[in-house]
Amino acid sequence: MRNIRLILQFDGTDFCGWQIQAGQRTVQGDLTAALRALTGQDVSVVSSSRTDSGVHALAMPVSFRLDSNLPLKAFTFGLNALMSRDVRVVDAIEVPPDFHARFSAKEKTYLYRIQNGRIALPLERRQAWHVVEPLDLEAMRDAAGRLVGTHDFSAFRSAHCDAASPVRTLARVDLSHERPGILAMEVESGGFLRNMVRILAGTLVTIGRGRHPPSWVDELLAHGDRTRGGQTAPPQGLFLKSVRYLD
Amino acid sequence: MRNIRLILQFDGTDFCGWQIQAGQRTVQGDLTAALRALTGQDVSVVSSSRTDSGVHALAMPVSFRLDSNLPLKAFTFGLNALMSRDVRVVDAIEVPPDFHARFSAKEKTYLYRIQNGRIALPLERRQAWHVVEPLDLEAMRDAAGRLVGTHDFSAFRSAHCDAASPVRTLARVDLSHERPGILAMEVESGGFLRNMVRILAGTLVTIGRGRHPPSWVDELLAHGDRTRGGQTAPPQGLFLKSVRYLD
Repeated sequence: MRNIRLILQFDGTDFCGWQIQAGQRTVQGDLTAALRALTGQDVSVVSSSRTDSGVHALAMPVSFRLDSNLPLKAFTFGLNALMSRDVRVVDAIEVPPDFHARFSAKEKTYLYRIQNGRIALPLERRQAWHVVEPLDLEAMRDAAGRLVGTHDFSAFRSAHCDAASPVRTLARVDLSHERPGILAMEVESGGFLRNMVRILAGTLVTIGRGRHPPSWVDELLAHGDRTRGGQTAPPQGLFLKSVRYLD
Repeated sequence: MRNIRLILQFDGTDFCGWQIQAGQRTVQGDLTAALRALTGQDVSVVSSSRTDSGVHALAMPVSFRLDSNLPLKAFTFGLNALMSRDVRVVDAIEVPPDFHARFSAKEKTYLYRIQNGRIALPLERRQAWHVVEPLDLEAMRDAAGRLVGTHDFSAFRSAHCDAASPVRTLARVDLSHERPGILAMEVESGGFLRNMVRILAGTLVTIGRGRHPPSWVDELLAHGDRTRGGQTAPPQGLFLKSVRYLD
């Protein structure tokens, strides 16, 4: 058996997320169908992350095992020829037998983009969250700094999150202007809870709007009550940016 | 009569260009319908430029005269509420009676984006031209420098161009990396011929691919034969970036 790792980029707009679901168009569904067409086999594909409906990926690693002599090129150009233009294999390599796209992941980086201004810009509407009120970047950075480190993130996960522990370690929460009017949040962690990045973005925007001070984050981390936390930012601003593995 | 100037941003993907056409969705058509709904009048709207099908605008000025006491806000928020999300009025001001969005324009800047790499990236597919072969940026810059100035651009206009003179003056043709893998060409001129920016982009890419040396541009300018020139680059890479008026 060979173990193959692909890197996918996809525009999540027209996908109901990663995970295969009957009657829905998903990235895993499209990729599995293309692999079946290419290899004649039913291949079980695992990804680093299960992205939600509408979320994008700049570079999502996926892996699968199969018996096949196909050259690696077939897994880029061959699969791409069998899939729609909103998902592409950008790289394919052979990995050791014990590699698993999800369990071997050491660090993941997500990007969340916010378009801040009076008018929702047409050219940004599919890849950013439009926020009208002017955002106080310094307050948001103050709050971001309080999130870094190891905490109980109970107030920052969806009610549907099934992770055993709500404790996670954020290595980095950076805010910067991609250009005037486009604010980019980058977060890095060994692992995230369900909807965590979107709730982090929603919480920082609530603070940026001046509805709560930066110290609100300390309260949220302390009481762990999701119902008293920030909103979940919409999916179209979120991108899985990269995943790091031990080499 | 008041004279109003709007600045529009639109995602050209789902429009058959600017100009109103029976049975086609166009930006002028959508805007005119929204103005009719807002004011009850048939308003004649002129734009700085007639963009082709699939071409985008970051900031396109349009102007129209009408009898109405509506506050300027009605022309941003009111019109936006009446149009689809892929076109937005981002600004509205009152201008002197002799202002005309097209005839008063002094300088226009277009942006052309090229995604250069083996794989056509899903997240760029609507707003860039995908070019596989590695591009020689220095050769392209050499060629771009030869285009600046006043020339007969006969080899750089569509066969359908109805401009009386093929002579135009390019103030600037700049090439830079927006980020790795995304090449941006910016061109500035008092006026362009039909398809000129897309033919300029296609010509520079032909040179970047090494099919012709930079001096090919001198030959094209000299013989003025469109049929021996570069290809017309596809519309989705082109953006009307800004238009300058005398204040």
